[in-house]
Amino acid sequence: MEIVLAKSAGFCFGVKRAVNMAFKAAEEDQNICSLGPLIHSPQLVERLEAEGISVINDIHALQDQSVIVRSHGITRQEEEHLYTNKLKVVDATCPFVKKAQKYAELLGSEGYCVVIVGEKEHPEVQGILSYVQNAEVFVAADVEAAALLPLGKRVGLVAQTTQSYENFSSIALKLLERSKELRIFNTICDATAVRQHEARTLAEAVDVMLVVGGYNSANTNRLARICSEIQPLTYHLETANEILPEWFTGVERVGITAGASTPEWIIREVLLRLEKIQK
Amino acid sequence: MEIVLAKSAGFCFGVKRAVNMAFKAAEEDQNICSLGPLIHSPQLVERLEAEGISVINDIHALQDQSVIVRSHGITRQEEEHLYTNKLKVVDATCPFVKKAQKYAELLGSEGYCVVIVGEKEHPEVQGILSYVQNAEVFVAADVEAAALLPLGKRVGLVAQTTQSYENFSSIALKLLERSKELRIFNTICDATAVRQHEARTLAEAVDVMLVVGGYNSANTNRLARICSEIQPLTYHLETANEILPEWFTGVERVGITAGASTPEWIIREVLLRLEKIQK
Repeated sequence: MEIVLAKSAGFCFGVKRAVNMAFKAAEEDQNICSLGPLIHSPQLVERLEAEGISVINDIHALQDQSVIVRSHGITRQEEEHLYTNKLKVVDATCPFVKKAQKYAELLGSEGYCVVIVGEKEHPEVQGILSYVQNAEVFVAADVEAAALLPLGKRVGLVAQTTQSYENFSSIALKLLERSKELRIFNTICDATAVRQHEARTLAEAVDVMLVVGGYNSANTNRLARICSEIQPLTYHLETANEILPEWFTGVERVGITAGASTPEWIIREVLLRLEKIQK
Repeated sequence: MEIVLAKSAGFCFGVKRAVNMAFKAAEEDQNICSLGPLIHSPQLVERLEAEGISVINDIHALQDQSVIVRSHGITRQEEEHLYTNKLKVVDATCPFVKKAQKYAELLGSEGYCVVIVGEKEHPEVQGILSYVQNAEVFVAADVEAAALLPLGKRVGLVAQTTQSYENFSSIALKLLERSKELRIFNTICDATAVRQHEARTLAEAVDVMLVVGGYNSANTNRLARICSEIQPLTYHLETANEILPEWFTGVERVGITAGASTPEWIIREVLLRLEKIQK
């Protein structure tokens, strides 16, 4: 059985940066927490806890700790709360997310009706949304939702950085039909597009596809969905323990990819487990 | 034989306005000319000549005449020439064309690389183009041309007012793929879209389709192309004289539409001719 690991599997730039910043901050400061789990990987969150980084979900529960802002970013209101309360902040917001926030803010300030392509409840989207001030702002998950928005004539568009380009462009096309001016900032992160493209190509070439990553990770779930549309024998798993040997009966090639928040060691464990099954 | 005339056949708002302005100006001033043929209808140009409005093609040949600027508009350089030479100007530029010029100018001044969807040699496009200053500007007739443009990261898009929405949106989609920011002004005139949509629906419902308008009229040619894709028995004609009775052998329904520059009396003559053939 041939095992093919996607080159782009695992941590993206923003997550790698945030995790490094967190471990470094923990070395220097023992009274530190992250605002919400740093990334959507329960396994990594456990390791961070072992280094002394606790998870605090309620911003108002913060006292005198240092606080790590995770790569998804936070809302403008939360940012204000941190700074007005003079809390020590390690800002690990992904620079690409910062850009999406900045463009959403710009569009709002220039009077556009702002549409964010993404999942309404996702913290990244909540953050981007909060930067639009004194202007209408909507979140559209798909083209059907975009078709129903009560838009103005001048529409501005940004995306959650992990969105698929296909969804983004089909929403852009729908909004073009419905507006006189449409100003689009393509804030999709290339890493996501590359990872999704590679996953698609790989899924076409294998008999079984494994997608590794947190069940609560939106980008991993999307990756699993993309792969399963091409290869019905796609399994989404969080850790190597979940792998069952019978998945590989008669299989010649197995492909592996992993979400942007999947630590390298988990991918390594999956590889080791597969090699064991093979023997 | 049933004869169905499209509601939207003939003069659009801008052409009607220009023709009215020209006839009114001719009443008040006998030393008057239009800069190029007022509209793409040789028959109407003849009538205007009978009212004393000559056609001058070279702006430098103007002396002390009053000059009518036609609905397509002129270039910024030509406008400057008219005003610096203190010529009396009747500006019949279509307000929708003026908007396209204004948006192209705005995009250029804000540093966008400007793309105009349209036919490069068309005077309207030449006019719009001339308003882009100190910025890159390209004309793309179709998505294949748009795919090859040496674009910047920030792209601005406008359209010749008579373009089809399908062409415009497919070019927009191609440019979205190729840029980080895309700012689109949909400068397509609704009249064109409505006329094209009605022509399409009508062509589907008839056995023969007649498209009436100047052979040198871009929008009439486009209308003829749209109809012939749906109904191969589509005839593009300039005047009623060209109609042959044999086109209607065994035909139950005939549809008629006309370009934005086709005078009403020509459409009326086509209807009369059809009624005669029927008897």
